[in-house]
Amino acid sequence: MIECLVDGSEQLSLPADDRGLAYGDGVFETVLCVEGRAVWWDRHLARLERGAAVLGIAVPDETAWQHDRERLLRTAPPRCVLKLILTRGSGGRGYAPPQSTRPRRIVSRHVAPPNGAVCDGLRLRWCATRWSLQPRLAGLKHLNCLDRVLARAELHEADFDEGLMCDVAGQPISAISGNLLVLRQGRWLTPPLDACGVAGICRERLLEHGLIEIAPLRRDEVETAGGLVVCNSVRGILPVIRLGERQWPPNEATRALQHRLAEIEPAFTL
Amino acid sequence: MIECLVDGSEQLSLPADDRGLAYGDGVFETVLCVEGRAVWWDRHLARLERGAAVLGIAVPDETAWQHDRERLLRTAPPRCVLKLILTRGSGGRGYAPPQSTRPRRIVSRHVAPPNGAVCDGLRLRWCATRWSLQPRLAGLKHLNCLDRVLARAELHEADFDEGLMCDVAGQPISAISGNLLVLRQGRWLTPPLDACGVAGICRERLLEHGLIEIAPLRRDEVETAGGLVVCNSVRGILPVIRLGERQWPPNEATRALQHRLAEIEPAFTL
Repeated sequence: MIECLVDGSEQLSLPADDRGLAYGDGVFETVLCVEGRAVWWDRHLARLERGAAVLGIAVPDETAWQHDRERLLRTAPPRCVLKLILTRGSGGRGYAPPQSTRPRRIVSRHVAPPNGAVCDGLRLRWCATRWSLQPRLAGLKHLNCLDRVLARAELHEADFDEGLMCDVAGQPISAISGNLLVLRQGRWLTPPLDACGVAGICRERLLEHGLIEIAPLRRDEVETAGGLVVCNSVRGILPVIRLGERQWPPNEATRALQHRLAEIEPAFTL
Repeated sequence: MIECLVDGSEQLSLPADDRGLAYGDGVFETVLCVEGRAVWWDRHLARLERGAAVLGIAVPDETAWQHDRERLLRTAPPRCVLKLILTRGSGGRGYAPPQSTRPRRIVSRHVAPPNGAVCDGLRLRWCATRWSLQPRLAGLKHLNCLDRVLARAELHEADFDEGLMCDVAGQPISAISGNLLVLRQGRWLTPPLDACGVAGICRERLLEHGLIEIAPLRRDEVETAGGLVVCNSVRGILPVIRLGERQWPPNEATRALQHRLAEIEPAFTL
């Protein structure tokens, strides 16, 4: 974290009684910023609002977020990431929030990881940790992320860059830090996220442009795919070169998808 | 929160990059303290250690917790609650913790709610929100509590004091803030928590003394029970007087169980 605003003030700390800490009672977004422009800003705010509505947290006015964004981008390098957190605010000791609670917004600036288009290819493994099942929170980006923390700990940095996670029934859902796209018979498919997973903004854009389709996938269908990629809104499309024993050489379909994404959003130009 | 120690120093705030906030990456305990004595202290620390081991968080030496406890109890009223939180510490923006992360402990003092033995009886409802399913975290008291926050929001304070939660398959698991005990044919039964739920310390003690037994229960078996109680380590045993349409008058079996608990732990004397 380079810089941080808590409710608009420069601060590197927050009250210890914040319910985001106590219960994970909040939502978050990570937004790629390129030369002062926040990529898919409206989409990120819309998802944050959807999540907050499910949790019953009032969302601060958009101008508050915009103000934080401008303040942090003023001194930013050409490429950086803003993380937006909205918590229910301070609370007592109990699941019911006090009547007087005011939501708290925390916006911080971070180093941007490289564009997925310059990634040589991810080495993936299947994680034993399942994506937690909580139907009311499916698709949302909330602060209860222990499933991904546990899955991440299964990777041994020397051998794997990313992990694939299944739901509790063993059905493939997502990579740890991005959505999974699977090439089968010339079509890019991505698992439905009705019960668990985070519905990524990059995935959403690709769906809208008809470049990918939602389809349930079995593990063996992932393993025998013509190609795999992981996508997220910070890195775009990351090719996969290995999953367990299976290897994929760099392929035209992945390059083509990266090109199409770059047309949709120039931040991901190759 | 009345007073708070962060890593042993009096502080009401913590770094905004704590992973407890970012991901709910930590565990917690709430401990009843009566006249300077922390009730079931060793049990609470043991569960905290079990949880931290699953998450791969190193637990501070017991003397550190003891020191915090003594410091906060020095000026405490005869009855209070200490909340212990252990997070993985500060982190970057990513599920993998930095190599250098140091776990952070946060101990705060709170007002104690009344002994369950003086409670007239809880009015319960079934919550629509399910207990999240994450087998690796079953039974533990970690910081990913959005399921209980959502369930709590289903109660309308005027009508209900507590809620009963089922797992995603619809099987009764627990009350929101305590374990569920169900009287059937003269035996107190409590649902197994192999897949979800928090294995409470009060429940653990009652099991050890052979006062309750683990048994899977259907919703209709809960509704047609001879009596219901909710138990937790802060309030002991709370009688239930109503669940939906069904009502239970004060009954001898509940009083007897409360008496037995008071023999085990005098903090819960009637």
